[in-house]
Amino acid sequence: MASRSKDKRQKIIRAATKVFARHGFYHSKVSEIAREAEVADGTIYLYFKNKDDLLISIFEESMDQFLTLTRNEIEKETDPLAKLRRFVRLHMTMMEKNPRLAEVIQVELRQSSKFLKEYKNVKFLEYLQVVAEVIAEGQRQGVIHKEVSPAVFKRMLFGALDELALQWVLSKRRYSLADVAGQVTDIFLQGIEVTPSSRGVALASEVPPQA
Amino acid sequence: MASRSKDKRQKIIRAATKVFARHGFYHSKVSEIAREAEVADGTIYLYFKNKDDLLISIFEESMDQFLTLTRNEIEKETDPLAKLRRFVRLHMTMMEKNPRLAEVIQVELRQSSKFLKEYKNVKFLEYLQVVAEVIAEGQRQGVIHKEVSPAVFKRMLFGALDELALQWVLSKRRYSLADVAGQVTDIFLQGIEVTPSSRGVALASEVPPQA
Repeated sequence: MASRSKDKRQKIIRAATKVFARHGFYHSKVSEIAREAEVADGTIYLYFKNKDDLLISIFEESMDQFLTLTRNEIEKETDPLAKLRRFVRLHMTMMEKNPRLAEVIQVELRQSSKFLKEYKNVKFLEYLQVVAEVIAEGQRQGVIHKEVSPAVFKRMLFGALDELALQWVLSKRRYSLADVAGQVTDIFLQGIEVTPSSRGVALASEVPPQA
Repeated sequence: MASRSKDKRQKIIRAATKVFARHGFYHSKVSEIAREAEVADGTIYLYFKNKDDLLISIFEESMDQFLTLTRNEIEKETDPLAKLRRFVRLHMTMMEKNPRLAEVIQVELRQSSKFLKEYKNVKFLEYLQVVAEVIAEGQRQGVIHKEVSPAVFKRMLFGALDELALQWVLSKRRYSLADVAGQVTDIFLQGIEVTPSSRGVALASEVPPQA
């Protein structure tokens, strides 16, 4: 796609995110998105098939960005557990910094049955796969329990983050999601790691040697 | 409500669960639910305001049953960690035994913005509160870490179970949810408990006494 055309597409996506967050997906009109994006109504249909396509594109774009950012951030760590900690913090921070996007992803998107049932969400699956790979890496290194299924764990972690982000959106963002992230990571890391965590180490030292 | 009237209400709720699971909420017609329940169309409106009210009632009824069952089951245990294990297993088993209900709760209900935004879900909050209370109990007994926030944990746990149940429904129930439950509990219990679990104990014994 030529750069100018790509810019226009981005502009429409940003406008749609605003409008969906403001009125909800079902009550939003394509004409309103066009007005917000400062393009003609017809222009939108040059880039997107319909309103559903726009909603899904918002998600795809953001997943693409999440994925790039996450991969870059995670590479900075060598320890798989530290990688998971970064993943969780980054996910929550991205939601916190983009409240309109969070509203659309958490509230509007889950209302689309088209999205839930018909759409093969490649980027999202790749995003979850990042978690599964970190788990497998930790298992090879002997720092994560072998019994942990990477496929189950990635869903557990995402489910927990998704529910917490949804509550945060529905509560009108009354608290810090980044603060919650630390709590989530502490529980999940202690839950999967082989060597006791700092919390665990203190405890292990209390176990009599004969235990 | 008189018993006969209560029976009829139940019959309509069961019929609506079937119809919603078969065609999806949006494509279901009240007339079809009436046919399935073997009542006149008008009868439905004696018990429910509209289709949304029916959807929410399905959820309320099932949460009410989940809550009663869960409380009974949990009382059989004295150890808070064993209580959590029961909670998770029961939640997954209830989904597994009621695939139509699981479809409606996991797929249809999340599409209702009325449900998500306007509805105060008393029974569901009580259900989550069972988890929070078990955590607080474990903290008083010194078996669960004091840093774990019961409010965050109940959402984490529910989010993980909900995501796993959703994937199970979308995968056309290709695997056993009860099997997944064990995996989920292992991770969460090790994640919050003060004394190392059986897995943790074995590991603790590997820690040199000077650690």
